[in-house]
Amino acid sequence: MIRASVIGATGYTGGELLRWLFAHPQVEVAHCTSESSPGKSISSIHRDLTSKTRNEIFTEKCVPETIAKDSDVVFTCLPHGSSARTAKMFLDRGVKVIDLSADYRLKSAAVYKKWYGLAHPHPQLLKEAAYGLPEKYRNKIAAARLVANPGCFATTSILTALPLLHYGLIDPKSIVIDAKSGVTGAGKKLEPKYLFSEANENFSAYGVNHHRHMPEIEQEIAVAGNKPSITFVPHLLPVNRGILAAVYATLKKKMTTRQALEFYVKFYAAEPFVAVLPEGVYPELKSVQRNNFCQIGVKVDERNGRVIAFGALDNLGKGASSQAVQNMNLMFGFDETCGLY
Amino acid sequence: MIRASVIGATGYTGGELLRWLFAHPQVEVAHCTSESSPGKSISSIHRDLTSKTRNEIFTEKCVPETIAKDSDVVFTCLPHGSSARTAKMFLDRGVKVIDLSADYRLKSAAVYKKWYGLAHPHPQLLKEAAYGLPEKYRNKIAAARLVANPGCFATTSILTALPLLHYGLIDPKSIVIDAKSGVTGAGKKLEPKYLFSEANENFSAYGVNHHRHMPEIEQEIAVAGNKPSITFVPHLLPVNRGILAAVYATLKKKMTTRQALEFYVKFYAAEPFVAVLPEGVYPELKSVQRNNFCQIGVKVDERNGRVIAFGALDNLGKGASSQAVQNMNLMFGFDETCGLY
Amino acid sequence: MIRASVIGATGYTGGELLRWLFAHPQVEVAHCTSESSPGKSISSIHRDLTSKTRNEIFTEKCVPETIAKDSDVVFTCLPHGSSARTAKMFLDRGVKVIDLSADYRLKSAAVYKKWYGLAHPHPQLLKEAAYGLPEKYRNKIAAARLVANPGCFATTSILTALPLLHYGLIDPKSIVIDAKSGVTGAGKKLEPKYLFSEANENFSAYGVNHHRHMPEIEQEIAVAGNKPSITFVPHLLPVNRGILAAVYATLKKKMTTRQALEFYVKFYAAEPFVAVLPEGVYPELKSVQRNNFCQIGVKVDERNGRVIAFGALDNLGKGASSQAVQNMNLMFGFDETCGLY
Amino acid sequence: MIRASVIGATGYTGGELLRWLFAHPQVEVAHCTSESSPGKSISSIHRDLTSKTRNEIFTEKCVPETIAKDSDVVFTCLPHGSSARTAKMFLDRGVKVIDLSADYRLKSAAVYKKWYGLAHPHPQLLKEAAYGLPEKYRNKIAAARLVANPGCFATTSILTALPLLHYGLIDPKSIVIDAKSGVTGAGKKLEPKYLFSEANENFSAYGVNHHRHMPEIEQEIAVAGNKPSITFVPHLLPVNRGILAAVYATLKKKMTTRQALEFYVKFYAAEPFVAVLPEGVYPELKSVQRNNFCQIGVKVDERNGRVIAFGALDNLGKGASSQAVQNMNLMFGFDETCGLY
Repeated sequence: MIRASVIGATGYTGGELLRWLFAHPQVEVAHCTSESSPGKSISSIHRDLTSKTRNEIFTEKCVPETIAKDSDVVFTCLPHGSSARTAKMFLDRGVKVIDLSADYRLKSAAVYKKWYGLAHPHPQLLKEAAYGLPEKYRNKIAAARLVANPGCFATTSILTALPLLHYGLIDPKSIVIDAKSGVTGAGKKLEPKYLFSEANENFSAYGVNHHRHMPEIEQEIAVAGNKPSITFVPHLLPVNRGILAAVYATLKKKMTTRQALEFYVKFYAAEPFVAVLPEGVYPELKSVQRNNFCQIGVKVDERNGRVIAFGALDNLGKGASSQAVQNMNLMFGFDETCGLY
Repeated sequence: MIRASVIGATGYTGGELLRWLFAHPQVEVAHCTSESSPGKSISSIHRDLTSKTRNEIFTEKCVPETIAKDSDVVFTCLPHGSSARTAKMFLDRGVKVIDLSADYRLKSAAVYKKWYGLAHPHPQLLKEAAYGLPEKYRNKIAAARLVANPGCFATTSILTALPLLHYGLIDPKSIVIDAKSGVTGAGKKLEPKYLFSEANENFSAYGVNHHRHMPEIEQEIAVAGNKPSITFVPHLLPVNRGILAAVYATLKKKMTTRQALEFYVKFYAAEPFVAVLPEGVYPELKSVQRNNFCQIGVKVDERNGRVIAFGALDNLGKGASSQAVQNMNLMFGFDETCGLY
Repeated sequence: MIRASVIGATGYTGGELLRWLFAHPQVEVAHCTSESSPGKSISSIHRDLTSKTRNEIFTEKCVPETIAKDSDVVFTCLPHGSSARTAKMFLDRGVKVIDLSADYRLKSAAVYKKWYGLAHPHPQLLKEAAYGLPEKYRNKIAAARLVANPGCFATTSILTALPLLHYGLIDPKSIVIDAKSGVTGAGKKLEPKYLFSEANENFSAYGVNHHRHMPEIEQEIAVAGNKPSITFVPHLLPVNRGILAAVYATLKKKMTTRQALEFYVKFYAAEPFVAVLPEGVYPELKSVQRNNFCQIGVKVDERNGRVIAFGALDNLGKGASSQAVQNMNLMFGFDETCGLY
Repeated sequence: MIRASVIGATGYTGGELLRWLFAHPQVEVAHCTSESSPGKSISSIHRDLTSKTRNEIFTEKCVPETIAKDSDVVFTCLPHGSSARTAKMFLDRGVKVIDLSADYRLKSAAVYKKWYGLAHPHPQLLKEAAYGLPEKYRNKIAAARLVANPGCFATTSILTALPLLHYGLIDPKSIVIDAKSGVTGAGKKLEPKYLFSEANENFSAYGVNHHRHMPEIEQEIAVAGNKPSITFVPHLLPVNRGILAAVYATLKKKMTTRQALEFYVKFYAAEPFVAVLPEGVYPELKSVQRNNFCQIGVKVDERNGRVIAFGALDNLGKGASSQAVQNMNLMFGFDETCGLY
């Protein structure tokens, strides 16, 4: 039994994280913080987390001294910049940190500055931080005191594209990723485009080829010095949760769908939370909402020598909070699937 | 051909009004105003109103002197208080006004103050203003220089309940109205509850028995000194447009559904935009979205001596902008259905 | 550890039931049946139930002899009529049955025949069957071998209205229930009105005052011979899951909202899965989706001497499958909240 | 004033067509046919087309002799195969035909047979039929007695990709089209995947690289013998109406977004219903729903030498019924924008 605290517990990511943690057999939630709404019950903020079957928890301001004493791990769900600094304060007090912000994902402080517009407060930690994708860094995560939980578009894109690059099947300069995300991906931002009356019955691209998850994807799909350069277009889907990405790339040699699928099946055979679908079956959002799975489907366009790989996951689940719990399981030596499904 | 201007053209009501006015064979749109976004093209604000098939119009700040010269009628779509003052400025310059705010709907300045929290700036106009429900005030509207366009919940509730009170069929103290509205009813307010991620896949009551349209409804369904006192509960529906209200009331004497329907059919026989549905058919939102109709269905619960009347309309249509155009048609002597459907 | 089988596992109720059972620490799922699709993996039917973290289960045709041997309890999720007969076959083989159909809910075979159009195949079991609402029949359920799991509209309406009748606060002839349900309430019926293009952006009443859950509600809210007679109007909401009902009734004597709420708080104080909300807070669907809670909010319309009580729950959760698991917990002596939240 | 009849008036395409025709100043609707539901009022089938402001029309079985006498043009909205035969019967009787099925779109009877699985009943008409895309075949349409109204995915893809091929800007073998369509694109088919509970909050690809509009797109974007070979992936969007397609292709030479946009602006300068958006603005569904516009946005990925072009339109509007009216305007010498917006 470990004690976990959530730093920044009022957003969608924080609420989803608490949902998983409350049901986890090895975790007791110690503290929840909120700078803007301290002193509120979690069940009044996340009204689906009714407290009748557990102890009620109240938000408090983040005082690292106090929280560190009661916590084996903290999950930092703060805006970038702020998250990096808070994470450091807990690391300095011997608490393991899983950071759900973007702060420790990029290995290069220069790239971080370019995309996030500020100097990284603790660049020395960038190298140490484990990129929290268990499918790629399982051992490093298990040994880490700081895990950078990946972005939702990044997790989807990397898991979907990685086998193609790992086995050298495609031209790494030919990758086009057409991604679609539900609206919780934007958090609770009060911007007109996220209003129901604007987003409902609507669909459009945004951040066209200029989304902050692009460098994270390129960093992580690079294999053996082969630097991919992707075209990445996210769209806003009128659903609450879920991401589906289509990855298009040129095959280096002729291949059937069955052959391409075999590479995927082999690559993910031992992975508890990546499911490769049979030929002719493609992922859909409703299969991955509120669980920790990434589902992948593959089709080869033999006429044009192109592979089409689809990946889907829940932007609040495998794209954020349940992946954070999977990382926690690794860091504390629990069964990797403990409390997850 | 008349010239019409829209004061406050950037909201949902303004956009919908422009959609009807651009297609109206007797209207030329002269000016559109916006205090917050002057100098913008209408097609960039309301992107569905592409300008390729008409002259582009640009928003400007509201200068009554200028606009009055070019306008036979102005539609004021401003926040309450502000709308009353602006309307007066145009009336003083000889321009007819259709006010889409709540400012001239209530006949009592005291009731206005109670519900809207401010002293009415021009209480002397309250008596003069015609309540813009053609089904009740057709002649008064035709002769008016100031029309107070009704609220969306009010139009729905009044049209649905009125025949019951007009023919004295029900106990006026027994009325319960359970109403459901699409999210555009709230305008473009940047409040968390109107975010897609909050409103989508959700449903709840709000303003329970304390909604500003209540006094308007009670004022207008009062018949011959019989003062009804209603229970009114609005709910927020996860759809963009449309209101459906269920009116429950105790019948004074036994009656079949067929008999109740006959009263409705008679009452609305000559009305171009109120459709009474056959026995066993009930209104639905998709039948009234983007048109100017109110559809009504009726059922008698014979076991309990209670009538159930359902009314549906588009909160931006018959509940706001197309009703305003219907009022305009009456004020200028056009066919009442001109440019409407 | 008990072994549970699901008879009729391919519908929404069956899928949701499996979701809860797979995660239940005291249950092993033994068999899943499907007459129309035998031999299919559960993970291919309910694609969100990916089998990578559990043993895969395959549907089979229902052979009571075989299944009875391997099962401590069966959940029958079949059409009415068929469900009653199947339940009997398992009871005869000593297996406890939780029937999610309507077959054993009504105490009167005559009322059953009137509303379901067929003679009850086993009327002698109607008296024995426990009505599976733990809040009312906890002890009877714990001792039962046959539990009739309540309907979704019925659970919502009963839990919301019961305290008013229990404490004699209202006129039992004055009850109006305006209920709204998500589309999964209709199962996977291939009827035009359940098509996305018809139900989306739409809203309407159906089965107006003639819904099959009406007699069930009236049977269960009757208190001490006081026979209520309700007006009941269900509506189809454009959401996947969730029911919200507004119960309107005339108070016998003056009362404030606070006083009315006190009765509810007292009535449900010890209930793990009924949450009475504070004054001014009303239930919403998103708070009860995918959990086993019923949330209730209350408001008194003092002007008209009327109480308005709102209840919300998930039609597939507390309105069906998770309530069935709650009943199972009681029948097998587990903690009532075991595996639920 | 011309007389138009709609053959197959009960589907979504037929309903939308009637909405446009009823409002068209030069058209009188003569007959509406339905083989499955003859004798029904249009206002009871398409409940938004309330008949109070026009003459009611009743469906009848299709008797070409009768209907031909009263019609200057018929719109055939029938399943493929059937539509081709019916169109021929009207042509033989001297009536102009706009066929909204796929039957006369492909120039090759062999390709038709491959994709639609049946021998074309009137292959001799394939050459004569004008492909009803005014932006490409304006003059041919104006002179035609038979117009093959394009498919919705085809119209979107062709209008979005055509300038790139016309000006020779891209490698014609590099085109990837990732398209997303609202659910009305599937008509009123009673298949599980089109149920609200399945399609809502969901998103997935279908017909991956094997959709019937593919050969139509390739036929029409071929320029001067340059035969493009596309990868085409449609997805099902949880909205009622609208298509958005992203076209990705490799540029033959370096180019900025501004330069690419200039080609589009020039190509569509005179087109009343194609709007090219400014740099940095991308099309969205809500801007094209219920109007006849196609909106296009363009972005160049300079790093990878790739162009991304987005096109959006209403699958029932410019993708079907309002485009049919645009074709009708051309065929009868009306202003091309008459009755459209």
